Amino acid sequence: MGDLAQKNVMESENNGSNIGEIMLRLLPMALCVVALVIMLKDSQTNDYGSLSYSDLGIFRYLVHANGICAAYSLLSAIVAALPRPTTLPRAWTIFLLDQILTYIILAAGAASTEVIYLAYKGDTDVTWSETCGSFGVFCKKATAPISITFIVSLCYVGLSLLSSYRLFSKYEAPIGQNNNKGGIEIANY
Amino acid sequence: MGDLAQKNVMESENNGSNIGEIMLRLLPMALCVVALVIMLKDSQTNDYGSLSYSDLGIFRYLVHANGICAAYSLLSAIVAALPRPTTLPRAWTIFLLDQILTYIILAAGAASTEVIYLAYKGDTDVTWSETCGSFGVFCKKATAPISITFIVSLCYVGLSLLSSYRLFSKYEAPIGQNNNKGGIEIANY
Repeated sequence: MGDLAQKNVMESENNGSNIGEIMLRLLPMALCVVALVIMLKDSQTNDYGSLSYSDLGIFRYLVHANGICAAYSLLSAIVAALPRPTTLPRAWTIFLLDQILTYIILAAGAASTEVIYLAYKGDTDVTWSETCGSFGVFCKKATAPISITFIVSLCYVGLSLLSSYRLFSKYEAPIGQNNNKGGIEIANY
Repeated sequence: MGDLAQKNVMESENNGSNIGEIMLRLLPMALCVVALVIMLKDSQTNDYGSLSYSDLGIFRYLVHANGICAAYSLLSAIVAALPRPTTLPRAWTIFLLDQILTYIILAAGAASTEVIYLAYKGDTDVTWSETCGSFGVFCKKATAPISITFIVSLCYVGLSLLSSYRLFSKYEAPIGQNNNKGGIEIANY
């Protein structure tokens, strides 16, 4: 009876942290979709000519990174919502993919920031003009998805920490812990 | 006697992984110093004018990131070499700093890659010229520290994994593991 009560408490705690994780995965999904849509619609035509997001290679990469991130966030939220116990291979997969996504999205954000900075300030030493002087509306709209990408990066830093905690906290468990019935299930190799 | 033998084995294993960690921290230190020196010496003067690393803001940031990374790598290698047992606050500090350094150095590498790409290819849509057409030697020399920065990033990805393993593998340990004498010492709060 005592064992059962303890198990129920642990299961409800597990569900609680799972709902937190699902929210933390759905948030970057929503943000990525918003960033993607804003960037895709970003173009400006005026007397100087026309400029769209696809004219800058890094913004195309940003759109792809946001798309991949949105898809992965949704998939991983579904996996997190599954009632199955967390096995070691699953924890490793989620952990590695979270890490890779964090680096992809951070790199996209950093490189895009540098390009929008150059577009605003220019660089006279390498004769790069201040594009935003002519295409102010384009630049202003482009800063939104870049900022959102950094918020997504922060979410993924958090998710990386969470999944590395989930994975590595299993690793001391097998030694002399056979009496810990309420613990997380460890896959047998 | 059996306990003592087991403890000795665990201590020698611990020393072995420590030497590995120290090497993994000294390698990025050496690479960062090399990248920093190459970048600092990178300048070219010809008929078109002169160009040095400091004319591009992102290369100045790269030099700073490499400097910070070299200093931190040396310090953390010294900390790893100390014979003290790993306490929880120390594991948390190393873990958080490793994470921050990984993101700093990756962001520097990604943004610098974008700039050197623009310098080589230019972007006619935003009227940015191919600077490397005029300053080929400068660009060629600049790719070396950027490539090195990516190798450093890889080292730091590895170090982040190692320090997160070190930290989070402690977290299941306290429950019902009082009989595990050879285990890592946990600080009492």
